[in-house]
Amino acid sequence: MSIVVVGSVAFDDVTSPSGSVKNVLAGAATYFSLSASYFTEVRVVAVVGDDFGPEQEAVFHKRGIDIRGIERANGKTFRWGGTYTDNLNEAKTDFTHLNVFESFQPRIPKEFEDSDFLFLANIQPTLQAYVRRNMNHVRLTGCDTMNYWIKGTPKELAETLKLVDVLLINDTEAKMLAHETNLPRAAQKVLAMGPKALVIKHGEYGATIFFREGAFGIGRHPFRAPTLPIDEVKDPTGAGDSFAGGFMGYLASQKELNREVLKRALFYGGVMGSFAVERFGPERLQSLTRDEIDERFHIFRELTHLE
Amino acid sequence: MSIVVVGSVAFDDVTSPSGSVKNVLAGAATYFSLSASYFTEVRVVAVVGDDFGPEQEAVFHKRGIDIRGIERANGKTFRWGGTYTDNLNEAKTDFTHLNVFESFQPRIPKEFEDSDFLFLANIQPTLQAYVRRNMNHVRLTGCDTMNYWIKGTPKELAETLKLVDVLLINDTEAKMLAHETNLPRAAQKVLAMGPKALVIKHGEYGATIFFREGAFGIGRHPFRAPTLPIDEVKDPTGAGDSFAGGFMGYLASQKELNREVLKRALFYGGVMGSFAVERFGPERLQSLTRDEIDERFHIFRELTHLE
Repeated sequence: MSIVVVGSVAFDDVTSPSGSVKNVLAGAATYFSLSASYFTEVRVVAVVGDDFGPEQEAVFHKRGIDIRGIERANGKTFRWGGTYTDNLNEAKTDFTHLNVFESFQPRIPKEFEDSDFLFLANIQPTLQAYVRRNMNHVRLTGCDTMNYWIKGTPKELAETLKLVDVLLINDTEAKMLAHETNLPRAAQKVLAMGPKALVIKHGEYGATIFFREGAFGIGRHPFRAPTLPIDEVKDPTGAGDSFAGGFMGYLASQKELNREVLKRALFYGGVMGSFAVERFGPERLQSLTRDEIDERFHIFRELTHLE
Repeated sequence: MSIVVVGSVAFDDVTSPSGSVKNVLAGAATYFSLSASYFTEVRVVAVVGDDFGPEQEAVFHKRGIDIRGIERANGKTFRWGGTYTDNLNEAKTDFTHLNVFESFQPRIPKEFEDSDFLFLANIQPTLQAYVRRNMNHVRLTGCDTMNYWIKGTPKELAETLKLVDVLLINDTEAKMLAHETNLPRAAQKVLAMGPKALVIKHGEYGATIFFREGAFGIGRHPFRAPTLPIDEVKDPTGAGDSFAGGFMGYLASQKELNREVLKRALFYGGVMGSFAVERFGPERLQSLTRDEIDERFHIFRELTHLE
């Protein structure tokens, strides 16, 4: 089934202990769509400037991604620069030039309106809600957000949370959103805000999915997918969006949403996140095979599997 | 089979967001021995002062723990006071009175010399090495340490690491010991210092065991045991020692050390750590049943188990 992602396409400058790159094609919608493209049909809604040309289009086209929803605006594409030092979990932002992204008004092409799955990447909550309300055929909506919106636009975010099925955020964001330092209690408070399920990403330790009582008809016991820490994290940028792409992409590839499918989706999320960080930018996500993905899925499964 | 633990017995004052307690029986050897007592025969080597009386003895005796190795010295028992605020992973130390522990010289009673397993809790590395060299029948030695010794007595610690089979430390300690911020690379460097296996404890995310090539004849793929975050962490003190007690205690209860046994031991470690933090001091570890332990083992197993 098809999935629409609404979010940023950007050019990044990234420096980490492993080196640096400039002007690399990035942004949440890029990481998400490349990652999800190994599982299902992906459609992108975003905005770019006149510096986005055939070279960038080819990155999406090679993975069969439909970019008819990428709007061309006058000006430059969103640009971000960041530096990672020893703590690879946190980037120091060197610059943020929103450029054409500043006045982004997502428009869903007619051809995308029949999509079954929707992922609202980290953009202004009011825009997320607007998109969700205009996609009437969607069976399941995933959503990301960040500290900036949790603190800055809590009311708007609360409205959006009522419209989404699965929220995917990290530990810090979950605790901030719930005003609660204990993770399971924070999860219950977030679920009370609207989502049926909450995926909390733990960085190199994996992710846990918490369910609202009765959601998906599968009971409320949480489930954890571990990740195997890898020997060299070159660039953590986009790990969360790649995780979301694996998770949502796998869900969209399945006929039924049951507990086992959601569990496997969480593992695939971790797998795609771990591939993303192996190279700078989304390079690794452009050259994978489904066999490589499934091989790592089995390694992650073995990591915690008791006979 | 029997296991000897050498470490501290103390009285703690603890304050956390859930309340506070004073003069509660604690210390690494206490948490470890209570935890391990659900799996195997436990023998304690420690030192206490004249404030340690029948009430404290009864805590050990009720769990069938052999305390003939607890020396009585003139003076007061080790006392520690700490406060946990919102970050439950780190205590602010309010006071440390080493008292009789300051001149602790571990003496192994004759009756303990035939023990099969040994756990060297967090004490001065030279004392750990001394104990290990005087226990000739030991099949497997586990060891803990901390930042204080990693920074302060690195040469002495290096000597001790050559004598132990399994080192159990946390992420920060592993990275500090290896001078390496990447966890899998840090693990390989620590294993090169001597231990056959390294257990890295990740707090609420569980623990990973890394193996030296060829150790225990089981290959070098790491294994992870997750923990389920619990709704209220009252007192994180002793979680690591309780983890070690579950891990080592389960190993000592098994005839053979193979990969599956080591995996299950890691899960039991997480289970015992999660019980320890539910109440102040080691209270919860005094009132468990093996059924409760195994029930939580199965919950933790289900947490990551794919069909």
